[in-house]
Amino acid sequence: MIEALNEIFSSNRVKTDADTLAQWGRDWTRSFKVAPAAVVFPQTTEEVVALVRLAMNRSIALVPSGGRTGLSGGAVAGNGEVVVSFDRMNRILEFEATDRIVRCQAGVVTQALQQFAAEQGLFYPVDFASSGSSQVGGNISTNAGGIKVIRYGLTRDWVAGLKVVTGAGEVLELNRGLVKNATGYDLRQLFIGAEGTLGFVVEADMKLAAAPEPQTVMVLGVPRFQDVLAVLGRFQQDLSLTAFEFFSELALTKVMAHRKLRRPLAVPAEFYALVEFDSSLTETAGAVFEACVEQGWVTDAVISQSDAQAADLWALREGISESIASYTPYKNDVSVRISQVPSFLEEVDRVVALAYPDLEVCWYGHIGDGNLHLNVLKPATLDGEAFYERCHHISPRIFEIVARHGGSISAEHGVGLLKRDFLGYTRSPAEIEAMRAMKTIFDPKGIMNPGKLFA
Amino acid sequence: MIEALNEIFSSNRVKTDADTLAQWGRDWTRSFKVAPAAVVFPQTTEEVVALVRLAMNRSIALVPSGGRTGLSGGAVAGNGEVVVSFDRMNRILEFEATDRIVRCQAGVVTQALQQFAAEQGLFYPVDFASSGSSQVGGNISTNAGGIKVIRYGLTRDWVAGLKVVTGAGEVLELNRGLVKNATGYDLRQLFIGAEGTLGFVVEADMKLAAAPEPQTVMVLGVPRFQDVLAVLGRFQQDLSLTAFEFFSELALTKVMAHRKLRRPLAVPAEFYALVEFDSSLTETAGAVFEACVEQGWVTDAVISQSDAQAADLWALREGISESIASYTPYKNDVSVRISQVPSFLEEVDRVVALAYPDLEVCWYGHIGDGNLHLNVLKPATLDGEAFYERCHHISPRIFEIVARHGGSISAEHGVGLLKRDFLGYTRSPAEIEAMRAMKTIFDPKGIMNPGKLFA
Repeated sequence: MIEALNEIFSSNRVKTDADTLAQWGRDWTRSFKVAPAAVVFPQTTEEVVALVRLAMNRSIALVPSGGRTGLSGGAVAGNGEVVVSFDRMNRILEFEATDRIVRCQAGVVTQALQQFAAEQGLFYPVDFASSGSSQVGGNISTNAGGIKVIRYGLTRDWVAGLKVVTGAGEVLELNRGLVKNATGYDLRQLFIGAEGTLGFVVEADMKLAAAPEPQTVMVLGVPRFQDVLAVLGRFQQDLSLTAFEFFSELALTKVMAHRKLRRPLAVPAEFYALVEFDSSLTETAGAVFEACVEQGWVTDAVISQSDAQAADLWALREGISESIASYTPYKNDVSVRISQVPSFLEEVDRVVALAYPDLEVCWYGHIGDGNLHLNVLKPATLDGEAFYERCHHISPRIFEIVARHGGSISAEHGVGLLKRDFLGYTRSPAEIEAMRAMKTIFDPKGIMNPGKLFA
Repeated sequence: MIEALNEIFSSNRVKTDADTLAQWGRDWTRSFKVAPAAVVFPQTTEEVVALVRLAMNRSIALVPSGGRTGLSGGAVAGNGEVVVSFDRMNRILEFEATDRIVRCQAGVVTQALQQFAAEQGLFYPVDFASSGSSQVGGNISTNAGGIKVIRYGLTRDWVAGLKVVTGAGEVLELNRGLVKNATGYDLRQLFIGAEGTLGFVVEADMKLAAAPEPQTVMVLGVPRFQDVLAVLGRFQQDLSLTAFEFFSELALTKVMAHRKLRRPLAVPAEFYALVEFDSSLTETAGAVFEACVEQGWVTDAVISQSDAQAADLWALREGISESIASYTPYKNDVSVRISQVPSFLEEVDRVVALAYPDLEVCWYGHIGDGNLHLNVLKPATLDGEAFYERCHHISPRIFEIVARHGGSISAEHGVGLLKRDFLGYTRSPAEIEAMRAMKTIFDPKGIMNPGKLFA
């Protein structure tokens, strides 16, 4: 096999050394076996096509690899697969100012795209903690969300066209950047969020937005969780928000310790809300804050006076994931309709308190779109595997509540390996059957990221 | 068959009289044979399921029927099919203010949804000339666009969840109104724009937007077509627009004659641009108008001073389709990327001038999203069939230009029967093959709107 790979890629782009296998064979998860056979670094669509055709003929399993910042094991190669890294397909190919569309190769890093947009006086609004290493192809394959969804939507909303190589080795150019195209099924949508199980995204036409006004950030102390939602509602009544995040005091202490940051408010609160809005609305936001204090929802707040201060406040939220990484957290990334959040959280809280009385549970998330991150932290004394098993065993109790509230067991992290066995809590048997049938169309040999999404 | 239908529907909801067959068996097209066997009017999802199961067992072809305002024959029943009208599934089922999501049955008329939204202090922004009779299910099945796409996007952007009955008789509840849901292929997207070939949309969770500011409308006279785009660019430089439409002098004369309206500007121009924007931006818009005059792009303009005047100006654009209906126009609804519009139009203009030197050709459209409506009018002296054949024969010459510019042969009217034979100008053989395979998954017996989209 290595020989055949060497024929497609110049030899320094086929790697089999232990370090490369270990590094490119996994994402940010730490609970799954990592054992790829090789890592390849294509530079062109033609090379990807040649690779897929080879893999079809020889039944070689392929695992796509972007920035490897995934949290569900979607890019983990644990069974002698060939990992296909898009690190060398990282060029911005074309920009058309009239259309405000930029064509990227799949391996363009999110932050590079954001920067490119800024250089054009425009804005790429999908943003999250891992934007410095995540790649556009990976964002698309998980329909990445992040911190500005309430204003700007998810990655799906910014994909105007896709070039994919299917598991049948065909190149499809889907939608080609058109605003309007009513000519049958929109296959582009199918590849968004497919976690590489249908084919590889090799290029994308990404829309850019107008540059936003300057932004101001406010962090508020909120003693009771149910009041976090009241605060959200009150803000949305008067302002169009760019972001509305929340995190718990425990999450705050972790991030302060890890990044050596100062406490944002003099007096600790059980929870914090982070609100971002156009700076021109600062006065209105101040009035809303006062109203929230009067209601007894909020104890105190701090507001950014500069971009640097805004970034410092954001660090309190964006640093959480990284700050708890050393605890190898068991991650829940669930969502419900916003209207369901209060009763949902009440039930989840009860289960968590019963199931993990002895463990630290870190709550935070994008509550403005009904998305909660619930991280169970591993005590240093507990064995990794035992910890994972225990949490994995408890997951169904949470997912059962998710299902009862019409929610999703994965809001924005995808399914990968972590949630594969639980897909049925969100998707019906008929849907899963249809998904399997669809996979057969685009990946007839079952070589594209096998074992992810469904077994 | 009628007996079996009567068993599912109380007998007054199965119709076979000639008038009903003629009326419910067709859409706004007038070039296709109309010959359904029956029309049924389900009231519940259960009835739709029972109908599909019956149709599967007896190989009965089903044609969905909404407001029948389609322009591509997607809802025409010409071969003894059973037409499934959603007229009796026209209830708004549920509204959740926190989520800003309203659950509608498929037969809710677009305008009723718009009105419901307004009653909640909110806004349903997808709007077009036929919104008084088109239905939500039909809008979804064609991914309807219309006049506010540059600000608000297409119907797809407002669908938070779908309940569908597939051609296999299964009920799928897709996405259930979640903002974030990364659990595999987003099947909801597949049913949007599928023209009923995979299954029937029976319910939809539609998002609502915040109510817009008051709007102001300006109509500008533009002597040269290429300057229409310069005007668009100049406006977009300074304002965020709600709409940017254009129409030709010929289109204007037709609508003035039909609706007995007065000419908006004292001196005729070859083309007109209609611009809509937040009233608070009126001063800015006035300055842009002056700048356009200085450039020699614009000769004159009129600006609305009230909602009534704004509606009057909109009537000039929205009335066009209706005003030329008596000419049984041959409709082209094509799109390209906005940056491609100038060279595209130049080529199309040349072909049209050569192909139809003797016929009236009416130009108008949503030029802000690259969408052009080009209507060839039938002279009273020409036989309908001969006219249709002649135009249909010339279509490939236009579609060839569309394909060369990476555009779409149907921007927002769908494919139906009218463009079925031309699908290959926009979608590749591999894409069409994948679409056919997908249809087999959801419609294994080929009973759902057969012959539409592909033969």
